[in-house]
Amino acid sequence: MRLHIVNPNTTATMTQSIAAAAKAALPAGVAIMATEPEFGPTSIEGYYDGAFAVPGLLARIVEAERSGVDAHVIACFDDTGLDAARSAAQAPVIGIGEAAYHAASMVGLRFSVVTTLSRSIPVIEDNLTRYGLAHRCARVRASEVPVLSLETDGAAAEAKVADEIRQALEKDGADTVVLGCAGMADMARRFSQRFQVPVIDGVAAGAAFAVALATLGVKTSKAGGYASPASKTYSGIFSRFAP
Amino acid sequence: MRLHIVNPNTTATMTQSIAAAAKAALPAGVAIMATEPEFGPTSIEGYYDGAFAVPGLLARIVEAERSGVDAHVIACFDDTGLDAARSAAQAPVIGIGEAAYHAASMVGLRFSVVTTLSRSIPVIEDNLTRYGLAHRCARVRASEVPVLSLETDGAAAEAKVADEIRQALEKDGADTVVLGCAGMADMARRFSQRFQVPVIDGVAAGAAFAVALATLGVKTSKAGGYASPASKTYSGIFSRFAP
Amino acid sequence: MRLHIVNPNTTATMTQSIAAAAKAALPAGVAIMATEPEFGPTSIEGYYDGAFAVPGLLARIVEAERSGVDAHVIACFDDTGLDAARSAAQAPVIGIGEAAYHAASMVGLRFSVVTTLSRSIPVIEDNLTRYGLAHRCARVRASEVPVLSLETDGAAAEAKVADEIRQALEKDGADTVVLGCAGMADMARRFSQRFQVPVIDGVAAGAAFAVALATLGVKTSKAGGYASPASKTYSGIFSRFAP
Amino acid sequence: MRLHIVNPNTTATMTQSIAAAAKAALPAGVAIMATEPEFGPTSIEGYYDGAFAVPGLLARIVEAERSGVDAHVIACFDDTGLDAARSAAQAPVIGIGEAAYHAASMVGLRFSVVTTLSRSIPVIEDNLTRYGLAHRCARVRASEVPVLSLETDGAAAEAKVADEIRQALEKDGADTVVLGCAGMADMARRFSQRFQVPVIDGVAAGAAFAVALATLGVKTSKAGGYASPASKTYSGIFSRFAP
Amino acid sequence: MRLHIVNPNTTATMTQSIAAAAKAALPAGVAIMATEPEFGPTSIEGYYDGAFAVPGLLARIVEAERSGVDAHVIACFDDTGLDAARSAAQAPVIGIGEAAYHAASMVGLRFSVVTTLSRSIPVIEDNLTRYGLAHRCARVRASEVPVLSLETDGAAAEAKVADEIRQALEKDGADTVVLGCAGMADMARRFSQRFQVPVIDGVAAGAAFAVALATLGVKTSKAGGYASPASKTYSGIFSRFAP
Amino acid sequence: MRLHIVNPNTTATMTQSIAAAAKAALPAGVAIMATEPEFGPTSIEGYYDGAFAVPGLLARIVEAERSGVDAHVIACFDDTGLDAARSAAQAPVIGIGEAAYHAASMVGLRFSVVTTLSRSIPVIEDNLTRYGLAHRCARVRASEVPVLSLETDGAAAEAKVADEIRQALEKDGADTVVLGCAGMADMARRFSQRFQVPVIDGVAAGAAFAVALATLGVKTSKAGGYASPASKTYSGIFSRFAP
Repeated sequence: MRLHIVNPNTTATMTQSIAAAAKAALPAGVAIMATEPEFGPTSIEGYYDGAFAVPGLLARIVEAERSGVDAHVIACFDDTGLDAARSAAQAPVIGIGEAAYHAASMVGLRFSVVTTLSRSIPVIEDNLTRYGLAHRCARVRASEVPVLSLETDGAAAEAKVADEIRQALEKDGADTVVLGCAGMADMARRFSQRFQVPVIDGVAAGAAFAVALATLGVKTSKAGGYASPASKTYSGIFSRFAP
Repeated sequence: MRLHIVNPNTTATMTQSIAAAAKAALPAGVAIMATEPEFGPTSIEGYYDGAFAVPGLLARIVEAERSGVDAHVIACFDDTGLDAARSAAQAPVIGIGEAAYHAASMVGLRFSVVTTLSRSIPVIEDNLTRYGLAHRCARVRASEVPVLSLETDGAAAEAKVADEIRQALEKDGADTVVLGCAGMADMARRFSQRFQVPVIDGVAAGAAFAVALATLGVKTSKAGGYASPASKTYSGIFSRFAP
Repeated sequence: MRLHIVNPNTTATMTQSIAAAAKAALPAGVAIMATEPEFGPTSIEGYYDGAFAVPGLLARIVEAERSGVDAHVIACFDDTGLDAARSAAQAPVIGIGEAAYHAASMVGLRFSVVTTLSRSIPVIEDNLTRYGLAHRCARVRASEVPVLSLETDGAAAEAKVADEIRQALEKDGADTVVLGCAGMADMARRFSQRFQVPVIDGVAAGAAFAVALATLGVKTSKAGGYASPASKTYSGIFSRFAP
Repeated sequence: MRLHIVNPNTTATMTQSIAAAAKAALPAGVAIMATEPEFGPTSIEGYYDGAFAVPGLLARIVEAERSGVDAHVIACFDDTGLDAARSAAQAPVIGIGEAAYHAASMVGLRFSVVTTLSRSIPVIEDNLTRYGLAHRCARVRASEVPVLSLETDGAAAEAKVADEIRQALEKDGADTVVLGCAGMADMARRFSQRFQVPVIDGVAAGAAFAVALATLGVKTSKAGGYASPASKTYSGIFSRFAP
Repeated sequence: MRLHIVNPNTTATMTQSIAAAAKAALPAGVAIMATEPEFGPTSIEGYYDGAFAVPGLLARIVEAERSGVDAHVIACFDDTGLDAARSAAQAPVIGIGEAAYHAASMVGLRFSVVTTLSRSIPVIEDNLTRYGLAHRCARVRASEVPVLSLETDGAAAEAKVADEIRQALEKDGADTVVLGCAGMADMARRFSQRFQVPVIDGVAAGAAFAVALATLGVKTSKAGGYASPASKTYSGIFSRFAP
Repeated sequence: MRLHIVNPNTTATMTQSIAAAAKAALPAGVAIMATEPEFGPTSIEGYYDGAFAVPGLLARIVEAERSGVDAHVIACFDDTGLDAARSAAQAPVIGIGEAAYHAASMVGLRFSVVTTLSRSIPVIEDNLTRYGLAHRCARVRASEVPVLSLETDGAAAEAKVADEIRQALEKDGADTVVLGCAGMADMARRFSQRFQVPVIDGVAAGAAFAVALATLGVKTSKAGGYASPASKTYSGIFSRFAP
């Protein structure tokens, strides 16, 4: 089985970390193809960055489809471009935010999310509303650690995230925690042991669920809103991406 | 007052029709600046097209902001890129889908939407859920008229749309109808008279609400999820769009 | 264009303030006709007062309709009598609470409301639920300033309202604030500047949206729940109000 | 125990039928005081009639409170003036619509409502949303029988209502039926036997639940939105109703 | 009239207290038959205990049906086995949690629940969601008093419950309180007087509503999900309970 | 990895079919332990059967936990006893209904469920509401094929299920189909090919998701509503199941 994991930002070192986190969570027989877009923002913090991440991400989805992968994972916690990616793919496509919420709702009754910056809170809350899981989420918390500081300033970042987890358990009534950024993948196991509750990393969850759907042989539906895009002209710098 | 209306697809003749529809709906003192993206799809039918429309649209929002407009209207019924545009703007930004739903909920109790293709139904339903207006919508109906056929094949298209309106009133219990495509703008007045119910065109509604917000002097909030994007590197063909 | 603004309580000085606030928010060409009921309570604080405000308010709506106005605004934040007024009118009718919530949801992602007395909180929360905008409202806060003290005790009242705004921004995660009483209309601009977030006054928002709907030429639907009342006998002191 | 049942319209013959229906549903020891307003509409069909029914209804609630009743029932299926009546009362106040929905949700999983005219459908749907029971309601159906025709044209009216019940069971998936007008009270028992499902009349349900709350000794809360109205001036024809 | 109240746990002293609480809340003419299961847990604290309480509870429902009771009350605040009991009964079946929520929503606008242990909070929240009353509930609070300590350690337990009530009124904005355990039945009247708000005990509410439904002559619907179980084999220790 | 799949009914031949369906969907390295309860109903059709299935099912969960399995699957589409099983387990527990809905929501935008008997529709709808996925479900359809007829009368049953799938795609607007009974597991692949949309079987989905969670090393949270049951006495035939 071949799994495509696309990091929607252009920071290649983050792609490597994400691939490593996914690899650690998967059985030996799964080959991982990790990509990042050819062009776009170096990190995604809010709606504007997200919008510029999607075209390059979709190009990677289309290329990976042609190469015959069995499933795709979009490794940004905002589930950036998820619906568009499903329109472009036959194989199943999983967002790491989505996967983490679904996993959390299968092992606990109330989860809190700990993400990076406050400005990402509404993106996450909107996704939870669309997915129907808002009532299972006690609260979305921001650690105020910027995405790229997770790499450069690990110990201080981890302390801030830990403090929010502690508050989620004490104040929110959460019995489960979701780490709200692909860059926090490696913290999940340590926090699970320290806090003795499930602490879920979306990268691992997304990879595991993608493998699950590929195992089932279930494809993305082409009968409704995820129908393949109609053939048409795209102009200018996007002409090569026309469906 | 200067109003910026951006047609998210690259079909310039459609931009002209949209501008004319907006002009007809506004008081004399409002200057309209109508744009379309420099690059992107010629029409938006589903999530994939939408994703490739947004970057060019955001560039137009940023340019218009610099030129000092008082409000923006995004003239695609999917409200393509609305959240990202608000992050990029100080002036208020209105989507024509959003404006039409809000207007419909102020003059009736149950509205139906008549849009172009079936594949757009879930996009619209998801927007209604996010906006909180799903319970006011009796049904989203597809006329199965492609966007660009609205221009090229007017009479036949209008007949199909009329048939769905008739069914919405007879079967859905709707007392109000929303036309679900910027390309249907000129039909609204005829249908209002023919069916004797409010038939709302989003282009006119979006323009009128944008003028309303500009008149109020209310700006887009920069205190939460619509905070201005943080400064960072965008690579490749997007380097010139970095915030 | 002629706009009818009805203050649902009988305090004529408040009608004057409301008319002034609306005038300040509208273009020069709009004529404002401001009325208050011939009979009823001097202020509306809770459901009981509201019930006795509505008949006199509806009489003003009917009179204004006959005189040919283009739109009506109900200038009580509870949107007192809004559905009944729509049944009595052909022109569009906007409630100032409704207008403020819709405006807030177009410029921010989470708003808090600051109203007068605690007893009004459930009225407002019920309206938000009915309108579908409850999920966009972070919290409804009471300043515990009675309606008429807003006129007689301005500075102290404004300090209490300011304190709730500060808490809304710090504790509720709101990025936008709605002032929950027609008597707070003149505070909006000062608070917007002081707190650097959109602070929305319903009187101005209601007037601006009413002008927007009138500009669109959209009427209240007579095809459903807002159908004109059937002819019948009203007895006693209400005989002259029979439809 | 003394129970006050107020018919919100001024048709005294209907008050008599309502009182009889309640009497038939209650134990011998309960005394019924049945009233109708001194002034107002002869029937309630839509929001406008409803608004003019409330002041006279509230006057009856206040009088009955003074006379020491143990509970009130508002015998219009729209639950006209329910919140305002609770503000005016210490004893519990039950609406017959409300009572019927709650009863239906205790003996079945999905109910349909059969009411009089289409224009009442949105009133009922809004109430169901506010009460939280919309998801238990399969559909609100209109028999298109005007309220007063239920008295004058009994057999034909009953046939039309029966036809809607049949459709509710066959098409809506309902396992329970609610009769959506006080004037249908006497049909419930016949339809229950004929269709072999629970057919619930709000008058009987409201009376039974009012007795239940009175038995419990539970009063209307005065700590929140139902606080007693503050003392203030009511002007003109309403001066005698000031709190 | 004969009312069957089943205590779902096997603690017979608690059955006696429950019967006494119900008797105190009912008119003289109602005969109470109080039972507890022949087998099962001595108290219900969480989902596991609940699952083992249901078979014995259903056996009591079936026996009571055969003996001709007019209604059943399930006297555990989790409404343990409520849907299954309705499938097994012709007479109406009321859960005490359900009854308390419905009663609270008829005398106030926002209620808080005070229950025993934290682990019961999600059970109660799930029930509120299913019943549609979650939006009327300000908060579910745990006093951390185990069920059986309510009997053995009355004064200390009552102090802890009182403290949560006080917080519900001060912090949650509740105007009404629901006591979330059958074992708290005798506290309701004292707390109502002390806190001057409605404090609702589910045992009394369930008994009163059961009498109300029996008075109405309404039966449990057999036309949908509560259809009588199909005849089939139950093996092993359950063979005697086969339908 | 060792996976425990428990068939909640006592029909051993159905356990074998379920195990075979799961085996076919899983990688070679996963060992399957398939069980059915020692006592209980031979099939589950509605709430009453469900209640008698749970104790025997929980006994199997407890035994399997002691034997050290990595995850559990409850192989009844009603997700019978799911919450109680999670309270009894440290390993993750997945219901096949739950798994199917989550899978469907990751490959399509609107799914319909095709189940056995009408009486199961409300059970499924209630689960969808609790899980938050009701808005993704277009409709729950009953084929009116009893559970055990799926084994004994395969071809006729399959034709009836196929007919409902056809209607789901034509009338409901579904782009994905969920098969609503463990006994339909073997039909999924044939229907996927025939109808060219994803047709999801819960047994395979549940097994795949259970493996996914086990791979992640995520356990059931013991910090909230799924806390291990407190030690206490269970009387009579249940004494040996006391926690």
